Amino acid sequence: MHPPDAFHVYDTTLRDGSQGEGMSLSVNDKLAIARHLDDLGVGFIEGGWPGANPKDAEFFRRAQSELRLQTAQLAAFGSTRRAGAVAADDPQVAHLRESGAGIVTLVAKSDVRHVERALRTTREENLAMIRDTVAHLTAEGQRVFLDAEHFFDGYHADPAYALEVLDVAAAAGADVVILCDTNGGMLPHRLADVVHEVVATGVRVGIHAHNDTACAVANSLAAVDAGATHVQGTANGYGERCGNADLFSVVAALEDKVGRRVLPEGRLAELGRVAHAVAEVANMTPDPRQPWVGASAFAHKAGLHVSAIKADPDLYQHTDPAVVGNDMRLLVSELAGRATIELKGRALGLEPDRETVGRVVERVKNLESVGYSFEAAEASFELLLREEMGERPHFFDLESWRVIVEQRAGDDGAASVVSEATVKLHAKGERIVATGEGNGPVNALDNALRLGLEKLYPGLAALELVDYKVRIVSGAHGTSAVTRVLVETSDGTTEWDTVGVHENVIAASWQALEEAYTTGLLREGQQGDDRGR
Amino acid sequence: MHPPDAFHVYDTTLRDGSQGEGMSLSVNDKLAIARHLDDLGVGFIEGGWPGANPKDAEFFRRAQSELRLQTAQLAAFGSTRRAGAVAADDPQVAHLRESGAGIVTLVAKSDVRHVERALRTTREENLAMIRDTVAHLTAEGQRVFLDAEHFFDGYHADPAYALEVLDVAAAAGADVVILCDTNGGMLPHRLADVVHEVVATGVRVGIHAHNDTACAVANSLAAVDAGATHVQGTANGYGERCGNADLFSVVAALEDKVGRRVLPEGRLAELGRVAHAVAEVANMTPDPRQPWVGASAFAHKAGLHVSAIKADPDLYQHTDPAVVGNDMRLLVSELAGRATIELKGRALGLEPDRETVGRVVERVKNLESVGYSFEAAEASFELLLREEMGERPHFFDLESWRVIVEQRAGDDGAASVVSEATVKLHAKGERIVATGEGNGPVNALDNALRLGLEKLYPGLAALELVDYKVRIVSGAHGTSAVTRVLVETSDGTTEWDTVGVHENVIAASWQALEEAYTTGLLREGQQGDDRGR
Repeated sequence: MHPPDAFHVYDTTLRDGSQGEGMSLSVNDKLAIARHLDDLGVGFIEGGWPGANPKDAEFFRRAQSELRLQTAQLAAFGSTRRAGAVAADDPQVAHLRESGAGIVTLVAKSDVRHVERALRTTREENLAMIRDTVAHLTAEGQRVFLDAEHFFDGYHADPAYALEVLDVAAAAGADVVILCDTNGGMLPHRLADVVHEVVATGVRVGIHAHNDTACAVANSLAAVDAGATHVQGTANGYGERCGNADLFSVVAALEDKVGRRVLPEGRLAELGRVAHAVAEVANMTPDPRQPWVGASAFAHKAGLHVSAIKADPDLYQHTDPAVVGNDMRLLVSELAGRATIELKGRALGLEPDRETVGRVVERVKNLESVGYSFEAAEASFELLLREEMGERPHFFDLESWRVIVEQRAGDDGAASVVSEATVKLHAKGERIVATGEGNGPVNALDNALRLGLEKLYPGLAALELVDYKVRIVSGAHGTSAVTRVLVETSDGTTEWDTVGVHENVIAASWQALEEAYTTGLLREGQQGDDRGR
Repeated sequence: MHPPDAFHVYDTTLRDGSQGEGMSLSVNDKLAIARHLDDLGVGFIEGGWPGANPKDAEFFRRAQSELRLQTAQLAAFGSTRRAGAVAADDPQVAHLRESGAGIVTLVAKSDVRHVERALRTTREENLAMIRDTVAHLTAEGQRVFLDAEHFFDGYHADPAYALEVLDVAAAAGADVVILCDTNGGMLPHRLADVVHEVVATGVRVGIHAHNDTACAVANSLAAVDAGATHVQGTANGYGERCGNADLFSVVAALEDKVGRRVLPEGRLAELGRVAHAVAEVANMTPDPRQPWVGASAFAHKAGLHVSAIKADPDLYQHTDPAVVGNDMRLLVSELAGRATIELKGRALGLEPDRETVGRVVERVKNLESVGYSFEAAEASFELLLREEMGERPHFFDLESWRVIVEQRAGDDGAASVVSEATVKLHAKGERIVATGEGNGPVNALDNALRLGLEKLYPGLAALELVDYKVRIVSGAHGTSAVTRVLVETSDGTTEWDTVGVHENVIAASWQALEEAYTTGLLREGQQGDDRGR
């Protein structure tokens, strides 16, 4: 199932990307991102540094049993053995060996100044550390890639030593040597010259670029043009400082502009979806101006030119946005989205008529303009579509809910916080009043709702809220901004996502909870009531 | 006072940049931005299209009396005469002639498909329109630059015609012909080839790039490398779709990497200030990851390497951040070691002793392991450091707080939600009970706290919560997961960030609010009470 080895699309979101300011990924987040990247069809996913970070070690442990990657292979990142140590006995190297990853990407110093001043060892020992570690891991059956850190600066300072590092690694069995612009100061022209010279030595070359000069994507493309056949980057360009090369932009340019196939057939059209899904998991606000996948990337303001654009879209866009799973957006955009809605309806087994599709397009547009996001909440979209088709079931009606959260300082100075929620509902002809406690207001509300409905719908006992995300959609007014809540619910075999938007976080949570329960009951096959409330 | 004419730094923020989604500049905004750009020392500022937009016409009117530009010259943007018209009698051309701008930048079609399908005229008439308009304006004493729209696509479709357009313009008196990658699909390599060929024809060449392939800066630099001596771009890369070339990144790379002086002596160090000032005026959130000038552009997370970075900053940065008016930042994170804490303390004017530093390292590590994040909450870090030094002031003590949020379905079916909070505090020997309402629980809590303390601390009236972020830190247990809240507060001149973590979102918000107010009072110079609570 692996793609051909001729060109490597290598993602390092989970390792180098997670160094970005404000990025903080749980092991669950990392597993979810790996699945999305696999959907896109990247060849390699660098999962982390198991020898340096216990969370990363857990990722590799869980990946072995929980991840079923279709295309990508996992790589573990780590460093060479310590100076003076034996590779086989080095505990950090042992973590790499035992990670379960088929590939190890070893970082090595290739700048003699870093060897002497940061690593504080000799040129010779640095080479020995690389030689020993590569040889040990390949002998143990792993494939080794070598990240040559600070390569371009090192090549500038002492080209002979920088090249010797690559030579030693390749001779010891490394399959690819990756030239890293670690500090990110390179420009494409000069970088391409260096890549040319390294490629001429006969090693297989990769590129790892950072965006400090706003040239990370161009540098990556220039390296490929000069003979590199392995490109490292991160989802949406996440990473330290100004970020890494945006792997999505690199891949899109290679496929759409350079004419080079680097993803499995048909996957490039997943790019927009995957880019947004990863942003959602990472809880990073998607950049509307992001090339290829941003919401504004194919948006046309020009009111006067709309008919010209509609008649001749090729004249006004650098490519067909559908190529990367994006849409053209026009101010008068009655066509925007119809096809998507029809396709989605069909995927749900629903066949909305022309008029219904039109109303749904309109409602989605309106709701998204006030903060809803349906691409990460398909269950809410399904309910909306059913509502417009007159097929949305109602299993309960709300009379009111109330949440009380209190904090009191105890005698020992430690504060204790209690949350209590009361819901008043009508269902199957009964009036229900139920109160729940919880460790937070939403948990209390969830417990009250569950308690109130469980007698009528025993199946609810199987439902579990497995994820809860909050995002402030417009940050201009501080706590007055609109809040978007995404809830992921599981019945033990499948999961579904629902969304709520309100200026009040509790009210937004209620909306998402209500749709989560409605979806659960719908999937269970319960007969609800079709009337609107 | 004008810079030498050998190289043109040409800003089009006020015209093309203002096409960006979410950008809406008043005439006052435009005047303010023009002053900032002049401080930076750009050679040309394109003020707008006076013949198409009354606001732009007003800008040029007011610019004549109100702007005292030291370095930059104003350019008016517009199009050639209409097909079949006489240039001298064309009202749009008259606006350009009478704008008061010494320079007119004329946009012209250079792609034969656009001439025939969008302009709906003949190849010959298009050339005549260009020839006549350029000749008319130069005869009237204005300098003319020609923006060749869709040039690269046009050159690809019909190179002879595209070159003829440039030829005609130059022969009629245009000083520079600017090759526009209007749809933004070019990559540096191919673009440079085309620029080379045009430069060889002997005309003076400029470049105008868009960022649709994430290569706008690289494309601009490639064009300069190929002989272009005029670069157009926008402040911070603002502009339609994915934006224009970020003029700031182009200028910084040319000066700092290519070794080409394109700004007046000493101005590059203004870059960071100007970039933020323009963002402020444009009401756009500055991008922390923006190359050169972003808050994260020289931020280092890696705790293990902090001592190495301190010893040899050159090894870890592609340039000295002071060159562009930026600073190195060390982020306090779970990996942070002693060196980071010491440096951070010094930056805050605090000198913790060895033992205190050890305790702070330990506490940061422990707190971050349960979900805190100090890299985005420097004010909370300062309070923590002060607390360990015995210097954390306490301005009020909490007895208790309570929040009630209720939703009731109204008669019309629309739900109304109300939030109410009560705080009980002790401050300056008084017991305070205050109740606030709000559009959400946190807003209600903020209002109650403010109401309760305002009599004792009138300075609090100036504080405003400008941003509020919620993150569920571990997604494994749904709504039971720990919640991290980040609050950004402003006193009108500076901002600060605080963090709170709790399984209960309201309690986490309270912590962040309490530290936000404490920091505000500390900055105001209030004397608090040093004891722990």
